Amino acid sequence: MFKAFTETTAYQELTQLAKSPYDLTASGALQNNERLSRYICRSSLLDLHYCTERLDDRVLAALQKLADELQLVEQFKMMRRGAYLNNIEGFESETRQVLHTACRDLFGSVPAESSATEEAKNELAKLKKFLEDIDRGIVCNHLGERFDTMVHVGIGGSDLGPRSIYEALQGYRVAGRNVCFIANVDPDDAARVLAGVNLERSLVTIVSKSGTTLETLTNERLVRDALQQQGLDARQHCISVTGAGSPMDNPSDYLQSFLMFDYIGGRFSSTSMVGAVMLGFSIGYDRLTEFLEGASVIDLLAEEVQLQKNLPLLLAMIGIWNRNFLGHETLAVLPYSQSLHRFPAHLQQCDMESNGKSIDRFGRAVPYETGPIIWGEPGTNGQHAFYQLLHQGTTVVPAEFIGFRRAQRGLDLQVEGSTSQQKLVANLLAQVIAMAVGQASDNPNRNFPGNRPSCLLMADRLTPQVMGALLAVYEAKIAFQGFAWNINSFDQEGVQLGKQLATTFLEAMNNRSGSRQSLARDFLTQVLDEV
Amino acid sequence: MFKAFTETTAYQELTQLAKSPYDLTASGALQNNERLSRYICRSSLLDLHYCTERLDDRVLAALQKLADELQLVEQFKMMRRGAYLNNIEGFESETRQVLHTACRDLFGSVPAESSATEEAKNELAKLKKFLEDIDRGIVCNHLGERFDTMVHVGIGGSDLGPRSIYEALQGYRVAGRNVCFIANVDPDDAARVLAGVNLERSLVTIVSKSGTTLETLTNERLVRDALQQQGLDARQHCISVTGAGSPMDNPSDYLQSFLMFDYIGGRFSSTSMVGAVMLGFSIGYDRLTEFLEGASVIDLLAEEVQLQKNLPLLLAMIGIWNRNFLGHETLAVLPYSQSLHRFPAHLQQCDMESNGKSIDRFGRAVPYETGPIIWGEPGTNGQHAFYQLLHQGTTVVPAEFIGFRRAQRGLDLQVEGSTSQQKLVANLLAQVIAMAVGQASDNPNRNFPGNRPSCLLMADRLTPQVMGALLAVYEAKIAFQGFAWNINSFDQEGVQLGKQLATTFLEAMNNRSGSRQSLARDFLTQVLDEV
Repeated sequence: MFKAFTETTAYQELTQLAKSPYDLTASGALQNNERLSRYICRSSLLDLHYCTERLDDRVLAALQKLADELQLVEQFKMMRRGAYLNNIEGFESETRQVLHTACRDLFGSVPAESSATEEAKNELAKLKKFLEDIDRGIVCNHLGERFDTMVHVGIGGSDLGPRSIYEALQGYRVAGRNVCFIANVDPDDAARVLAGVNLERSLVTIVSKSGTTLETLTNERLVRDALQQQGLDARQHCISVTGAGSPMDNPSDYLQSFLMFDYIGGRFSSTSMVGAVMLGFSIGYDRLTEFLEGASVIDLLAEEVQLQKNLPLLLAMIGIWNRNFLGHETLAVLPYSQSLHRFPAHLQQCDMESNGKSIDRFGRAVPYETGPIIWGEPGTNGQHAFYQLLHQGTTVVPAEFIGFRRAQRGLDLQVEGSTSQQKLVANLLAQVIAMAVGQASDNPNRNFPGNRPSCLLMADRLTPQVMGALLAVYEAKIAFQGFAWNINSFDQEGVQLGKQLATTFLEAMNNRSGSRQSLARDFLTQVLDEV
Repeated sequence: MFKAFTETTAYQELTQLAKSPYDLTASGALQNNERLSRYICRSSLLDLHYCTERLDDRVLAALQKLADELQLVEQFKMMRRGAYLNNIEGFESETRQVLHTACRDLFGSVPAESSATEEAKNELAKLKKFLEDIDRGIVCNHLGERFDTMVHVGIGGSDLGPRSIYEALQGYRVAGRNVCFIANVDPDDAARVLAGVNLERSLVTIVSKSGTTLETLTNERLVRDALQQQGLDARQHCISVTGAGSPMDNPSDYLQSFLMFDYIGGRFSSTSMVGAVMLGFSIGYDRLTEFLEGASVIDLLAEEVQLQKNLPLLLAMIGIWNRNFLGHETLAVLPYSQSLHRFPAHLQQCDMESNGKSIDRFGRAVPYETGPIIWGEPGTNGQHAFYQLLHQGTTVVPAEFIGFRRAQRGLDLQVEGSTSQQKLVANLLAQVIAMAVGQASDNPNRNFPGNRPSCLLMADRLTPQVMGALLAVYEAKIAFQGFAWNINSFDQEGVQLGKQLATTFLEAMNNRSGSRQSLARDFLTQVLDEV
């Protein structure tokens, strides 16, 4: 159906160009040829500065050609319009549409795929009514008191996205409301959260598309048990977010159910009810709408064919340049905002579960590298942690910095002639330049080789709208890279073997029969020290 | 002074052996030759299972030889006895001793380095007295009320270690006491924490060895400002942890000062007053002592010369096998314990800041790879996030799993025939086996290549003692690897360039003169969109 990555003419060109990548340490390298002002992709909510990547106009032209040959924008358009892109041709696979974008395709006159957007609108209308009922005290506890806490129970895609966005937008919370998260099957996770909340005043949102996720069902039971022990009626407290017809789509067990759809993968579900219920509760419906609008702005931008105007496509192609042509295995995502402290963990999931694949969309082994290892922590904290390796290690780590001109909250102070926000931005820009330019020294321990590529995503302020945009930039980037590598970014067969073996180990623990029993039992005996 | 890594005969042997590493996917590969029971290093607090690494007896013999030729245990002994190992021969460098181990060398008859242990004991005695005064209400607020909260202000080594250990030992907290952390210069970090604490009942611990760390001083000012606005006397609330004679070693500004010493690097300071003040407050002095004792057990074990009995050395050498001979750039640390959710971030700092270096202890460029990229998140959460890539990605990521036989807290429930803790352990063991063994399938999308190396650190329960041991295992591992690579693991010159450039950017923001002003100003103009 689509051309293979390595069969494009652009692939050959880029391979040649990679033999002498742009030298960022040369004299004037950043100021030559108006690089600082030309290598910016500006959009209404976010700018991408890429002057500190190891590329030049020839590389950009070849990347444009690669995107064109591989029909990346065309594929993105097909995705938004309902093509069955979650598929492996010729083998049993999920064979589903990929329509997370439909959840926010609410702001133009004609949606790209109208039935999915219609379904999203129905759920949003239900949510709006439900939130109003909470505000008005119509939905309340058995004493007629208002709910002030939400306990969000989910794992993976039902946890990391919502959690990171909640953390990011804490500054916009409705006064007095907070959200706690339980994810891990480790019983200490639920124990800790339950020790810190007043369940009487809590709504519990349980999120599982299939209604059968082991961790989530187990944690639901722990929470229901705790409710019962306090003499509370679980049905007055529990909400479900699940697929239609799942065991959790059951009005006798839940105060309210919101629907998920099979055309939205867990890791892309933050703008569906998976994120929306929790976010609507914590920041209110209007701000939830702003968040969705921010994402929709980027979805439209992603259909632009000119690489240098299409911010997510450009970010994706720069990633491919670094990964496949310059040979870098990892990517650090470094937000200079404490509010984004869990955003790298969400991207780690969204990117690595999507593109950590070795076969193409025809089931053939790919002869090139696919998704990199994504990791990161917020700056300036990271500067005092792992940046030593970024500057002077033997491995080059490309970085994507994220920054904001203004703080989210109001508290700040001048210390030694500058505010904290000024110090934060100064440090951010300093790192971008330091990694690129480096510094020579007679003391070899103070020598910085430079030529460590990075780019900078810059926005004015971390508002709900900007958060939506940032999320959509990465969702689109991941999709574009998957299209380029000709892999199916939307399944996750790699998680199945571990699940099967976990069952085998549980059987071995309980002395029941099962396949591979003997290896499982032998290992178990050693690990549990029951020799 | 010491032999170069590549000049050993063991290096040549290992290079040969790496051409055909042990095949974990072969039939019976894990059960042959009593591998499951022989490839365990047991110690009193922790066991290391390494049957799922790609090595055999020949590799282990060569790694033992490498350790011997490079005198790794000898160097560790020298370190504990006060050698000036923080040094670059022939160039200006810190030239300091490396004595974090002295902080816990309290349980034998003769300490390895008596003067440093004496200093540690003095500080511990001060702390014990101070904690008793808090317990008795002698140290209290202006209303005579007890302190129930500690706000810990520090960054990097003064933050990540303490924070991750506090999180790990939450189950042992003194009832009613909690600790909050402020690290980032981002003003939103302090704003968020201050919005959630009652300062009237809070002690504020400010941690900076030099007393001049920009982020920490700025955050101290923000907190003092908030205290003042509430009409509180900062001197009744603020404690400092700092070097003797620093600007923060000042009784007129602080209720109490505890000392740090120049022979303890920030990232190795968790068992010094940097971690102890916060930990003593939150879990009590007796449990703090248990934590220190756990670390001391490992420090002694690390002097064992037999590789297969010296757990941290073995972990270090397996890491070198994976990094230098099998060529893996990254290492995932995957604790199956929600309480350890920030421990990988601490290790990321401790390891990457120590061993992310490119020159040896004589200032020569090293012709081999040094410290890998360390990253990770707790399981089972990670299974629903990035494990897809671990199982089926194009890049192999070695993993260090960490698990516990029993939960830390008491809450658990049988669901579908097993407890949450059993499910957690079953998933942990399943992942170790799945990565090693893989699984063939006719559907290429369900094919698992296996041969993805990992090991498992297993303990009974995450107690203060086990936490101390776990910390010391990694501190010793990092030191051993640095010795092997012949680098100085104890400085961090790579953070300096960013600091200098940040000053340049602050000057440019304020239109003052400065070097590189023109590049800084030009970039600033573009980023702040003030064109």
